[in-house]
Amino acid sequence: MINVTIYNEFIHERNDEAVKAVYPNGIHEAIKELLSEDKNFNIRTAVLEDINESLSDEVLDSTDVLFWWGHLGHDKVPDDRVNKVCERVLAGMGLIVLHSGHYSKPFRKLMATCCRSKWREDGDRERVWLVEHYHPIAKGIPEFFDIPHEETYGERFDIPKPDDVVFISNFSGGEVFRSGVTFTRGLGKIFYFRPGHEEYPIYYMEVVGKILRNAANWCYNEGFTAPTFGHYEKR
Amino acid sequence: MINVTIYNEFIHERNDEAVKAVYPNGIHEAIKELLSEDKNFNIRTAVLEDINESLSDEVLDSTDVLFWWGHLGHDKVPDDRVNKVCERVLAGMGLIVLHSGHYSKPFRKLMATCCRSKWREDGDRERVWLVEHYHPIAKGIPEFFDIPHEETYGERFDIPKPDDVVFISNFSGGEVFRSGVTFTRGLGKIFYFRPGHEEYPIYYMEVVGKILRNAANWCYNEGFTAPTFGHYEKR
Amino acid sequence: MINVTIYNEFIHERNDEAVKAVYPNGIHEAIKELLSEDKNFNIRTAVLEDINESLSDEVLDSTDVLFWWGHLGHDKVPDDRVNKVCERVLAGMGLIVLHSGHYSKPFRKLMATCCRSKWREDGDRERVWLVEHYHPIAKGIPEFFDIPHEETYGERFDIPKPDDVVFISNFSGGEVFRSGVTFTRGLGKIFYFRPGHEEYPIYYMEVVGKILRNAANWCYNEGFTAPTFGHYEKR
Amino acid sequence: MINVTIYNEFIHERNDEAVKAVYPNGIHEAIKELLSEDKNFNIRTAVLEDINESLSDEVLDSTDVLFWWGHLGHDKVPDDRVNKVCERVLAGMGLIVLHSGHYSKPFRKLMATCCRSKWREDGDRERVWLVEHYHPIAKGIPEFFDIPHEETYGERFDIPKPDDVVFISNFSGGEVFRSGVTFTRGLGKIFYFRPGHEEYPIYYMEVVGKILRNAANWCYNEGFTAPTFGHYEKR
Repeated sequence: MINVTIYNEFIHERNDEAVKAVYPNGIHEAIKELLSEDKNFNIRTAVLEDINESLSDEVLDSTDVLFWWGHLGHDKVPDDRVNKVCERVLAGMGLIVLHSGHYSKPFRKLMATCCRSKWREDGDRERVWLVEHYHPIAKGIPEFFDIPHEETYGERFDIPKPDDVVFISNFSGGEVFRSGVTFTRGLGKIFYFRPGHEEYPIYYMEVVGKILRNAANWCYNEGFTAPTFGHYEKR
Repeated sequence: MINVTIYNEFIHERNDEAVKAVYPNGIHEAIKELLSEDKNFNIRTAVLEDINESLSDEVLDSTDVLFWWGHLGHDKVPDDRVNKVCERVLAGMGLIVLHSGHYSKPFRKLMATCCRSKWREDGDRERVWLVEHYHPIAKGIPEFFDIPHEETYGERFDIPKPDDVVFISNFSGGEVFRSGVTFTRGLGKIFYFRPGHEEYPIYYMEVVGKILRNAANWCYNEGFTAPTFGHYEKR
Repeated sequence: MINVTIYNEFIHERNDEAVKAVYPNGIHEAIKELLSEDKNFNIRTAVLEDINESLSDEVLDSTDVLFWWGHLGHDKVPDDRVNKVCERVLAGMGLIVLHSGHYSKPFRKLMATCCRSKWREDGDRERVWLVEHYHPIAKGIPEFFDIPHEETYGERFDIPKPDDVVFISNFSGGEVFRSGVTFTRGLGKIFYFRPGHEEYPIYYMEVVGKILRNAANWCYNEGFTAPTFGHYEKR
Repeated sequence: MINVTIYNEFIHERNDEAVKAVYPNGIHEAIKELLSEDKNFNIRTAVLEDINESLSDEVLDSTDVLFWWGHLGHDKVPDDRVNKVCERVLAGMGLIVLHSGHYSKPFRKLMATCCRSKWREDGDRERVWLVEHYHPIAKGIPEFFDIPHEETYGERFDIPKPDDVVFISNFSGGEVFRSGVTFTRGLGKIFYFRPGHEEYPIYYMEVVGKILRNAANWCYNEGFTAPTFGHYEKR
């Protein structure tokens, strides 16, 4: 079993009628539904309101893969939760950062760059192209898929050079974006996946579900040898 | 001085009236014009018709950076010229491959993949985005520039993972393409640059000229220590 | 089941008494023994003597992961077998190249560099360090392991920049070597693993067996979507 | 002119007689001497004692390339200096981190990993091998050079995957270390160079001087276009 925890700040869905109409139970529940198809996942959810409990040390210490969706509440995430998430990643926990989570504190700390991009909201068509077909995250994914309406993000996306650029998006208004990128930090694997604006029903798309399930399986890191550091004797 | 040689097969411009109208003296002369702005370049040109002379061992041995434009005549390039080009790259010669040159023999041999992509000819608008602003090839280049009409190439572009993805294109018909990518093979630096279809006046654009001049300077490899290989004594 | 084929030229073990004493049935049988511990492998072997049959198109087309050990007989491998191996890698077959196989025709063709290194035979102690602990090939492998006596290879090892440098060796005579490196070409994953000189009982070491089994599992590529290339219609 | 600033905490050289004997004026003055051979450098120095002045915002804002040597005083560097250094790197300042600086606050923040390694002090011989001969930092550097006695660092060195591994060291006691590695963060280039223990006269070695001068020239980033971020209008 892979222990998956889905963090969603859960603000838009309660404060904004249009978003509530799309995600009445919150984005985390929609993602949980998508992930539930993989019977090997043991899934919990966490929200900002009670983050000290729902994302406590105990929860994080028993989490193999953490999903992160945030936007309005980035600054409200306590620093000790951010530090604990980052420590866990370095110790081998997988991290999957979604959409506006690119500007969350844990992602920015782990990237150590500004993580910003261009953006605009015009409901563009996003066409997501698979670029690295051999990657485990790409398993069973078509050459491209369309999202009829999405918020637009545009390059330069200020991230360190990714290990793999799995997806690149074309927006009908003229932008491009590295929409699926992987990183390794310490023993932890990180996947950033761009689609997922709160106003559109993206976390109901089966292809998105398949990508997220693939990503969780890929991020899961079992059986590794932790390196030792510090002073040691001559051998 | 950097010794630059521009190879162009020079077929379209003689057989096709529409292309002749755009490049009456051949694509190589237009590129030469663009490069001439850098007074540090010593420029020669070579064409398929007399490739054994214009791209002889003597020419290649005294070339620091080689540009390559080819399309209809890929198969007519003699294998000994291909091998000599590849050897020179491994020994430190820079190589800049343009547009349909992605399917030339030297590029395919150096990449060792099929190097194909999707393509169509509908005169799409190509918007070329700068993705790695810190790269020497990007010096002085704006965040994006448009080519009003271009042939469309689409991912998956079957190349090994590049060292740097400097440019990514958005095509108005919905494709994306890694349009400026770098590689290192042996001591040689390689830059592939996608724009440059023979029917459009792309090699008259000043921004393209700046990119090609930057690339030639970046590819130029002086003062390196060649590694030694083979059996040696214990030290 | 993963269909594994082990190619070994099988020359040293028949012509050289010292090698025969170490590998009486050939290096391929020792590797087969190591791999047999994974019950998910369906294993065949192939040798140079009858390579057209033991490594026929039929065999390669039904091979998921190919191991390659060669040295004296590199030049005797027919070019059509080399081309078929490379095509299969681009189509998704995993390839694991061992020791002196770094100078085999398939590896050199896929790397497109000279693939040479420094070398000497003084029976040095090789200490193999794990550098990327998170890699699937590193699963269950200790921080380092020693090979009491090995042939020495030394950098510069002339390969393209690897995707991952999993192992780096220290030789008691003063050299270093990137001993475990991965590449991707087309849809195929490639792992080069340095240890394995014919005069030493390296393919009886349990840690080597674990690395090779991990590598075969990592190289195995199932369920991917093959990209399409060439002309297509506007969508 | 390239504006270079050398930061050295300058503690060992005042508190420890053995170190004082090697670097009577401090490590920063020895490095300044090495760099002075390049007449294109405009060199300043900074020390921990007066870091708020010697590494003020004004100094950093006018610094193109910053060298960093620290050890005992890592924790004493004020966080606002650390943040300013990191901001400047993202904005394009080059950063060259030396030896025990791998555990300094700016380097750890920019790497976002623990940055630790194994270490021991036995005065081992370090043999530094050039692995990427084509890199600008390698210009004019021999295939290897020896440091008769050095502190030993050993892998796993916990850093993100480097852009280039330029040097790898062999220690006579059996370790390996990626001794020269490059990274890019935002618009800034970073080079970490391992040698330089305070007890040994390493910053008097001409080969080390050449590497540091090459690195400063490589890190210097002029003429780039800063990307824009945030909300923008459809074009």
